[in-house]
Order: sequence, then C-alpha cells, then structure tokens
Amino acid sequence: MNLIVLLNNDFIDDTHITLTDKRFEHIRTIHQSSVGDSVKLGQLNGMMGTGIITAITDNKVDIEVKLDQAPPEKLPLKVILALPRPKMIRRIFRSIAELGIEELIIINSYKVEKSFWNSPALTDEKVEGYLMAGLQQAKDTVLPRVSFKRLFKPFLEDELPAIVQGSRGIIAHPATGKPCPHSINESAVLAIGPEGGFTEYEVNKFIEAGFEGIHLGERILRVENALAAITSKLY
Amino acid sequence: MNLIVLLNNDFIDDTHITLTDKRFEHIRTIHQSSVGDSVKLGQLNGMMGTGIITAITDNKVDIEVKLDQAPPEKLPLKVILALPRPKMIRRIFRSIAELGIEELIIINSYKVEKSFWNSPALTDEKVEGYLMAGLQQAKDTVLPRVSFKRLFKPFLEDELPAIVQGSRGIIAHPATGKPCPHSINESAVLAIGPEGGFTEYEVNKFIEAGFEGIHLGERILRVENALAAITSKLY
Repeated sequence: MNLIVLLNNDFIDDTHITLTDKRFEHIRTIHQSSVGDSVKLGQLNGMMGTGIITAITDNKVDIEVKLDQAPPEKLPLKVILALPRPKMIRRIFRSIAELGIEELIIINSYKVEKSFWNSPALTDEKVEGYLMAGLQQAKDTVLPRVSFKRLFKPFLEDELPAIVQGSRGIIAHPATGKPCPHSINESAVLAIGPEGGFTEYEVNKFIEAGFEGIHLGERILRVENALAAITSKLY
Repeated sequence: MNLIVLLNNDFIDDTHITLTDKRFEHIRTIHQSSVGDSVKLGQLNGMMGTGIITAITDNKVDIEVKLDQAPPEKLPLKVILALPRPKMIRRIFRSIAELGIEELIIINSYKVEKSFWNSPALTDEKVEGYLMAGLQQAKDTVLPRVSFKRLFKPFLEDELPAIVQGSRGIIAHPATGKPCPHSINESAVLAIGPEGGFTEYEVNKFIEAGFEGIHLGERILRVENALAAITSKLY
C-alpha cells in the first residue's frame, strides 16, 4: 500500500479523517507510524496528497489531510478481456488498476466456462476492492471503468465498432499477425483471450471490427503477464 | 500447460515414454486425448517436438515421441531480485521461466525479512517445479539458472562486476534516473528490489558497479508486474 485511498465516509470534515479498518492496521503495523508522522493518501476518484497523524490509538487513527496533487494520467488504453477463471480475477483486476488502464470490458468467449460467470469474485463490492488494491499499490485514486458483456456476438457487432473508433484495435493472438508494436502515440483497445485463446471465429470477428493480430514472440504468456508485457510495450 | 516437459526417467527408450503423474492427468482430463491424438512435448533442457498417444488407461499414458525442434532462444537477460516474500516466490519464479529470462540471482536486501530465507518454497525441488510450470506455459524446455546470494555486500563488490561486464546494468528504482529504455540490442542485467524498494545505500552499490537507475513512470508496480513490464520493454 503505497498510497492510502480515502472514501467519502472517512471524512469528518474537509481536512480531517478517521480510519479504523485495515488501512488503520496498515498504518499502525506496517508503517508503525506515530503522532506527527506523515502518510501518503488520496481521495477515491479525487486528489492525492499528504496526511499528518494527529492521534493514534489501539483501534483508530486521526489524520489531518492536505490533498493538492492530481492523480497520474491514465493510459489511453481500454482492455477487452475474456472472463478469467475465478482464482485469477482478483489478481488481474488489481493489475488493471495498477497498470493505469482506463477501462476494462469483460466479455464471454467459447473457452470461458459458464460457471465462471457465477463467481462470488464478480460482485460490485469485490471488484471495487480489487481495483482499489491496484490503485493503492500504484499511487493512483481513479477507478478504471469496468463493464461485463456476456453476449459475445452482439457486443462485437453492435458495440465494439464505436468503442474502437479513433483508436488502434489490437488483439493478442500467438502465432498470428505481427510482433506487438511499441511506443505507439495513440489510444488503443487491446483484446486478450482466455486460457487456451480465442477461437478462430472469435479472432475473425475482432479482425472484421478493424483489429490487428499481434504476438509476443514464440513464448505463450499467461494472461496477467501478457497484460503487463503488452501494456508496457505500447506505452 | 502448452507443452509437456519430459524428464529422463519418463523415457522407456529413445522414442517412447510413459507418464503416470499430473502430466498424465492433464492429458486425460484437460486435453481429453485418446489413442492417435498428438501432444506437444519437450525434453527438459533438450529438444521439443510432438508425441502420438499409443495407449491410455485410467492410470497411465504411453506416447511415441519425435523431438526435432530446438527450444526458443532465451532472452540475453539476467535478473537480480531481492528475495520475495514466500507467498510470491512461486509466481515470480514461474514468471522468470515463462518470460525466457536466462538467469535469476536471488539476493538479500535490508527490507527482506530474515525469516523469508527459511521458506519451504526455496528447496531445490520446489524451485525446479515452479520453473518447470513456467516452461510448460511458455513452450520452452531450458531451465533458467538460479542462484542464491545471502550476503549483499560481498556479492555486490566481489561477484557483480564480472556478471555485469559486457552487459547493460539496469536497476529499477522509482523516481530515480531515466525512463526504462526499450528495444535494446544488447544483453542486460536487471536488478529489482523488494517490496518497499532497495535502500539508498543498496542503490548506490549498484550504481558504483556500473548500473543505471530506470523507472516506469509515476506508478509503482508490484515486483511481478515490473518484471514483465521491464522485460517486455527491453526486448
């Protein structure tokens, strides 16, 4: 936790907050802070800055905050991702926020098991928690937008053209297309398939929507490594 | 598992193997293969190729193998990493093999808790298992070299100069130095610190050894994302 993200109900007034939950525990046990120490914090979807600890007890910490810095810019990158298996959801959503991706669109795909859509990891509250963990790691305050599109064909045909318009559409597909471009100076929409990849039909639907196939060389990376690797090459 | 890695004692003769362990389970339950189906495989630290299933029962599979392809080249990249916390070891070691890094040197650092060195994840057998999982994901057969250097100063002063000689030394250190270079056409040695980073003393020891500080922008990435992101930028 390199930045503590504050919610509206942490605020007593404009410049004073009290924390009692695991953020308090983090300040007490990891930072081992005491009165007068400073801590980096930011308001969810708002400004970042510094807090000075004014009181700390066994069950809460009071902090006087000064929020005067803008959060870092998001990358001009939207990611379209086939729903990952439940045990990967936490890590991947956290990475989306950590890497500075502005929007995540989760879609269905032939190789996504139907049961994955019922995962308890997909509640709004859980998803926000994973994203906030990524923000607190990366020192950012702004949640990426997240949406779920369970119907592949209507999404690809009816919604995707407007999403990719004016951006570069890229689909990661090992053994297809060109090497991943690097240092692009434009916004992009990146599609990454499930474990086992998109089917040929699915890849072709993206190509029809104007996407280009790219690969990362001979090695097949897991989704979370491919996500970090491609994002890093593009920007 | 995109490639099944074979050990010497899987071989009955030069072209026939029998599998009974979780690789067999993978072929039976994930691939759902039957007699006559082909499977991608490779010999640990050796050639890759294809196998044809000649018999499959409830407890073993017999495969006739033809190994005629060289594994992918490693990246000319050595990584020096402060020992990660035990729960991260598996994932990071697996990623090292997956990303094609040729050598991993695990070092001590001020912010590494002493107890981490006693982790059961660090036995030779466990480490080889994590690396093999990465190879099987990435379709490679060659284990990266791994070594452990528990004494920071002797390693930095006595061993590092010879390791970095003829290569570009790079240390990831947020807020220090220049942006991470990309598409370099030379071998490199990349140092990444623990959670919380290297101390200034430690960074300076790397600088003295000829390393340059690089950053990935304003965001602070977790070690595993930094590893994939920097590797991807460099090569």
